[in-house]
Amino acid sequence: METKVILTEKEMPTSWYNIQADLPEPLPPVLHPGTGQPVGPADLAPLFPMELIKQEVSQERYIEIPEEVQEIYRIWRPTPLVRAYRLEKALDTPARIYYKYEGVSPAGSHKPNTAVAQAYYNMKEGVKRIATETGAGQWGSALSMGCMFFGIELKVYMVKISYQQKPYRRVMMETWGAKCVPSPSPDTKAGRDVLARDPDCTGSLGIAISEAVEDAVSRDDTKYALGSVLNHVLLHQTIVGQEAKKQLEKIDAYPDIIIGCIGGGSNFAGVYLPFVKDKIEGKKPDLRIINVEPEACPTVTKGPYAYDFGDEAMLTPLIKMYTLGHSFVPPPVHAGGLRYHGMAPIICHLHKLGLVEARAEYQIPIFKAALQFARTEGHIPAPEPAHAIKVVIDEALKCKESGEKKTILLALSGHGHFDLGAYDEFLSGKLQDYEYPKEKVEEALAKLPKM
Amino acid sequence: METKVILTEKEMPTSWYNIQADLPEPLPPVLHPGTGQPVGPADLAPLFPMELIKQEVSQERYIEIPEEVQEIYRIWRPTPLVRAYRLEKALDTPARIYYKYEGVSPAGSHKPNTAVAQAYYNMKEGVKRIATETGAGQWGSALSMGCMFFGIELKVYMVKISYQQKPYRRVMMETWGAKCVPSPSPDTKAGRDVLARDPDCTGSLGIAISEAVEDAVSRDDTKYALGSVLNHVLLHQTIVGQEAKKQLEKIDAYPDIIIGCIGGGSNFAGVYLPFVKDKIEGKKPDLRIINVEPEACPTVTKGPYAYDFGDEAMLTPLIKMYTLGHSFVPPPVHAGGLRYHGMAPIICHLHKLGLVEARAEYQIPIFKAALQFARTEGHIPAPEPAHAIKVVIDEALKCKESGEKKTILLALSGHGHFDLGAYDEFLSGKLQDYEYPKEKVEEALAKLPKM
Repeated sequence: METKVILTEKEMPTSWYNIQADLPEPLPPVLHPGTGQPVGPADLAPLFPMELIKQEVSQERYIEIPEEVQEIYRIWRPTPLVRAYRLEKALDTPARIYYKYEGVSPAGSHKPNTAVAQAYYNMKEGVKRIATETGAGQWGSALSMGCMFFGIELKVYMVKISYQQKPYRRVMMETWGAKCVPSPSPDTKAGRDVLARDPDCTGSLGIAISEAVEDAVSRDDTKYALGSVLNHVLLHQTIVGQEAKKQLEKIDAYPDIIIGCIGGGSNFAGVYLPFVKDKIEGKKPDLRIINVEPEACPTVTKGPYAYDFGDEAMLTPLIKMYTLGHSFVPPPVHAGGLRYHGMAPIICHLHKLGLVEARAEYQIPIFKAALQFARTEGHIPAPEPAHAIKVVIDEALKCKESGEKKTILLALSGHGHFDLGAYDEFLSGKLQDYEYPKEKVEEALAKLPKM
Repeated sequence: METKVILTEKEMPTSWYNIQADLPEPLPPVLHPGTGQPVGPADLAPLFPMELIKQEVSQERYIEIPEEVQEIYRIWRPTPLVRAYRLEKALDTPARIYYKYEGVSPAGSHKPNTAVAQAYYNMKEGVKRIATETGAGQWGSALSMGCMFFGIELKVYMVKISYQQKPYRRVMMETWGAKCVPSPSPDTKAGRDVLARDPDCTGSLGIAISEAVEDAVSRDDTKYALGSVLNHVLLHQTIVGQEAKKQLEKIDAYPDIIIGCIGGGSNFAGVYLPFVKDKIEGKKPDLRIINVEPEACPTVTKGPYAYDFGDEAMLTPLIKMYTLGHSFVPPPVHAGGLRYHGMAPIICHLHKLGLVEARAEYQIPIFKAALQFARTEGHIPAPEPAHAIKVVIDEALKCKESGEKKTILLALSGHGHFDLGAYDEFLSGKLQDYEYPKEKVEEALAKLPKM
C-alpha cells in the first residue's frame, strides 16, 4: 500500500497548460484606466518583459517550459502526491484524500514555480533589476531565490504587519541576496502618501503593489513582478496540477472534489486548471472545485464582479474580478497570503461561468483543522492551505454520513514552519477571529472606478 | 541530465544496517559507574524498552523495520539525492557533488527516522509517557511527532539558550502535542541543583539529559529516549545511507569522499555506516569519510578517547568515547545540535580504527559556506550541516587544483528555516566566532571518572 505517488524527473511536464485556449467564453479584457480601452502590449511594456506580456494573452494551449527553468524545477520537482491515510482514519471517512505537497521547495511553498520562470524571462530580455511586493513573505522570498538563480537585483516591498510579525522572511530574502523594506515605505510617492495620511498604517498588499509598480516604472533598468492574480502567474503554476493529474492517473484515480485556498489565486488555480479542462470538455461534468477564502477577506463569496484596480494607488490597469475594493485593508488574519482585495481574473471568470465554487471560513476553525492535520499526517501546514484543510475535513465528514467513497484532492501549498507564531496564539487560546468587515468593504466599494 | 536520483517507495530499504555485525573489533563495553562492570539489559530497563536495549547490543547485520514504522517513513521517504550542479559550477570544480537531503521531513531534518522508531517500540511495550532532552530543538520536535503518531505523552527538557533563541521549536513540539520546558528546570533535582549553583545557567545538552533521565527513572509509566549517540539511534538513521547508496548505484556512482557534521553523530553515521561496511570489506579501501565538528566543541579532534558520562549529572552509564568532559558547557554557537561534550561510541571506535577522519571548523566560515550553498543550490541549510558544506567546498576546490573528478557525498541533514536568526546575525556582520575553550575543557577533563 503506497503512501505517495511520485513522478520521475523524466515524467515532469515540459509545458505549462494555458486555460485560455479552452475557455467557453474569452476573459473580459483588461482596461486602461485613462482611456477605458483594452490595454495592449505597449501599455504593459514598462512593467513586464515581452514574453510574459505575450503569455498573459496567449491562446496557445501549451507553452513550453524553457530548459533553464526546468533545470531549476528539478532541484525539488516533481513534488509528491500523498495519500492522507491517517487523516482519513481519524475522520473515519470512506473518502480518499490526497494532498499535493509544495512544501518541499527551498522556499517552502509553490511560489518558486512562477518566481523562477519570471526571473528567467526578465534575464533573457536583459532586465537587471526587479521590484515586487509581498504579503506574508512567501512571494518575496521565492522571487529572491528566482532572481538569485539568474543574477537579477531585487527590491521587495513587504506589507508592514508581516514584516514585523515574520522577521525570518526578510532574512530569507536577504540570504538569497534581495533587499526588503516594510511597506508603506518612504522610498516611493505611493508609500509616502499613505504614511502622511496614516503614519501607523500596517500596510496591505494593495499598497505594497503600488510601491513596487511605481519603483519599476520610474527606473529604466527595472521591471515589476507579481506573484499571483495575473494569467501568466497562474499559467506557471499549472506545473503543479499537471503533475497531480499524472500522479492520480498512475493509480487510476480522478478527483471528485478539488479543494484549495485562494488569496490572489495562483496556487489553487495552478492545481485545478488542468482538471477544469476536462470539465469544460464534458469528461468530468460533476467535478467540484472549491475555492476557500478567509471570512475576513471574502472576495469571491461576498464581493461584486466588477472592474477594479489591482492596487491601492490605482496605478495598475483595470481588471474584471470579484473585489472588495482596491482601498480595502483586510483584518490582520494570520493567513497573510490570503489578504488581498481582488482575485485572479481567470478564477473569477470560471466562477461566473459556474465551473468552480467558493466558500469563506473563519480563522479559529482553520487552525483547529490545521492541528488535526498536523496531528495525523505530521506535516504542519501554513495557515493559508489550512483553509482548504478545513473544507476537506467537512467534505470527508459528509462522505462519512453519506457513505460515498469520494476522491478529494487537497492543494497543500506550503509548510507552516514560518507560521508557528500563529500556532502559538492558537494553542494558547489567544487567537481572535475577525468577522467580515462589512462597513469597511462598503466604504471601499464606494470607491470602485465608475465604468 | 537528471538533477535528482529518486527511489520509489518499493525501493525504500526495509531493514536498518547494523555496523556491529561487521566491526573488525567489537565496541568497548558500556560500564556501570558504580561497579565498573559492563551494563546488562536489566541496568537499562528503567530507561528504554527492551527491543531498543536489544538493538543497542545486537550483532545481527540487518534489523527489519516494522511495517508501522515504514508506513510513517513513507509520508516523506525515500528522500532525494540531489546533484549540486550549480555549486559545482560556481566552484569551477571537476568534482561531482551529491547531497542527500533530509529537509523534506515534516520536522525539517533527519531526526524523525529514529523518533518514529523509538516511539513505536515504546508503544509496543506499553509505555505511556517519554521524557527526553533537546538541544537546538530538532530532536524534541521530531520525537513529539513520533509520540503523536503512537499516542504517547512526551515531556521535553530543552537547553535554555535554544528555548529562548528558538521559540518556534517549542511551538512545533506543542503543535504535535508535547510539553516543553527550558533546562535547567525546577522540575527535577538535577535541574534544581544546577540552578542553585548558577541561576543564570543557559543550559547544555548534558544537563538536559540529566533532567530527562531523572524524570524517566523516577516514574513507573515513563521511559527515556535519546536522539543521538547510542547505537540504536545510529542504527535507525542507516535508512538514510542505505537509500543514498542505492541512489548512487542507480547512476553507477560511488563516493570518494563522504562529508557530514557530527554533534552526537547519528545523522552522519546514518549516512556513512553502510559505506563503512564496504571499506571494512576492502571493496573501497581509499574511501574517505570526514566528520566535521565546531571548533568551539571539537570533541573528536581535540578530546581524549576515554570513559565518561553521557550527561552532566553523572546519571548515565560510562561510555568509551572522545569527550571534552561531561561538565563542559560549550560556547553558544548557532549549531545547537553540535554542542555536545561526547560523541557516538560507534563513530569514536571507527575513528580510533582509522576508518574515518575528523575536522573542526569555525562558525563564520561555516556561514559563508552556507550562504554560497543557498545562493547556488537554493536550499538554505541548517547551521549544523553547513559545517559539512564548508568542507565539501574545500575538498571540491582541492579537486579543482588537482584536476581530480572526485565524487563527493554531502549529508544535508536539514533545512535552516528555523535558523534564520543566525543568518541575520551573519548577514549583518554581528556573528562572532568562538575559539576552542581550552581552559574550560581542561577543567572539565579533570573531572573525568577515574578508571
